[in-house]
Amino acid sequence: MNWIQKEIHISQKSRGFHLITQEILSRFSELSQINRGILQVFIQHTSASLTINENADSTVRSDFEAHFNEMIPENQPYYRHTMEGSDDMPAHLKSSILGASIQVPITSGSLNLGTWQGIYLCEHRNHSGPRTLVLTAWGESY
Amino acid sequence: MNWIQKEIHISQKSRGFHLITQEILSRFSELSQINRGILQVFIQHTSASLTINENADSTVRSDFEAHFNEMIPENQPYYRHTMEGSDDMPAHLKSSILGASIQVPITSGSLNLGTWQGIYLCEHRNHSGPRTLVLTAWGESY
Amino acid sequence: MNWIQKEIHISQKSRGFHLITQEILSRFSELSQINRGILQVFIQHTSASLTINENADSTVRSDFEAHFNEMIPENQPYYRHTMEGSDDMPAHLKSSILGASIQVPITSGSLNLGTWQGIYLCEHRNHSGPRTLVLTAWGESY
Repeated sequence: MNWIQKEIHISQKSRGFHLITQEILSRFSELSQINRGILQVFIQHTSASLTINENADSTVRSDFEAHFNEMIPENQPYYRHTMEGSDDMPAHLKSSILGASIQVPITSGSLNLGTWQGIYLCEHRNHSGPRTLVLTAWGESY
Repeated sequence: MNWIQKEIHISQKSRGFHLITQEILSRFSELSQINRGILQVFIQHTSASLTINENADSTVRSDFEAHFNEMIPENQPYYRHTMEGSDDMPAHLKSSILGASIQVPITSGSLNLGTWQGIYLCEHRNHSGPRTLVLTAWGESY
Repeated sequence: MNWIQKEIHISQKSRGFHLITQEILSRFSELSQINRGILQVFIQHTSASLTINENADSTVRSDFEAHFNEMIPENQPYYRHTMEGSDDMPAHLKSSILGASIQVPITSGSLNLGTWQGIYLCEHRNHSGPRTLVLTAWGESY
């Protein structure tokens, strides 16, 4: 049984949905030591989130931003948590709807994603900073 | 420590929400070897998803389909990813809102679900094909 | 490798979003035995859920309740699962959108949450009872 855990920082991103699969893999080459296991990516924030979706056409990611802004609008009259800006409370809501972690199976030293799947970092604030991820992988060694 | 990992294919389903708990259990009898552990079910697609909800009344599942179509409508004027049909971009959105995996505790060789909980395969496309699931279980052997 | 699993009951809560981080930690001191690992909290219900969000300002939690009631309203004309009350079908929908489990990394015997993150129990029914959680932690011992 093998445990690997590492904290990484993702440089500041614009508001929207960003593919980070390659960045995670390039900074976590220890994954190749695991024959069968799981990778968890956990984000230590409440106004950004993680999800898995299409890794090819960038309009999928811009449509995510458009639809999430429609489904969870700014300036709703019932928001009371407004001191940190109109994008703040929607960011909290979006981050719980998408989630703070993803878990992906590892098979033969690689992420066992489908052909079209990639990992998204979802930045819900207009102006945030770098985001901290905790990467944890566990499984059978070879 | 015991690791079991297996890929299974679920035959094509109609658009909507489908109970698959029994199908998973019948194809993963190795679960009974694990005393305390976790089962992960991971779907390798970006237009279908997995969730846990009520396993009894089928109107819960049809109401899921009705409400998800209301909350994430087709043909929104702001969608740009439209080449694969009007059900495609909503399918991507629904799949991230529900998620690509579920994790369920295993206790004494069985899934430790609540009385009313079952596993749903959520098919968001009108016409897809079979769906691939990666089942991974890990835990203490007896 | 260390496995700890325990069932706990959370006393009945009012409809809304409730911080339960401290209650979980105080009832699961065995966490401190794990150097690197994962805690899963799993809720055995289909009308209550778990999420991670801001642990400070209580208006975040009341805005969650307000927005979820707007995004998933009661008495929609298309609901057919209505026998258990107008809050029942929305509760099922909310619970799948937020999810039945959270997974948090453990580092040096503590939950490796961000500064502002806490665990929410999301009670979606007007009048429910106590809620059952299955806590499972696994990881490297010291």
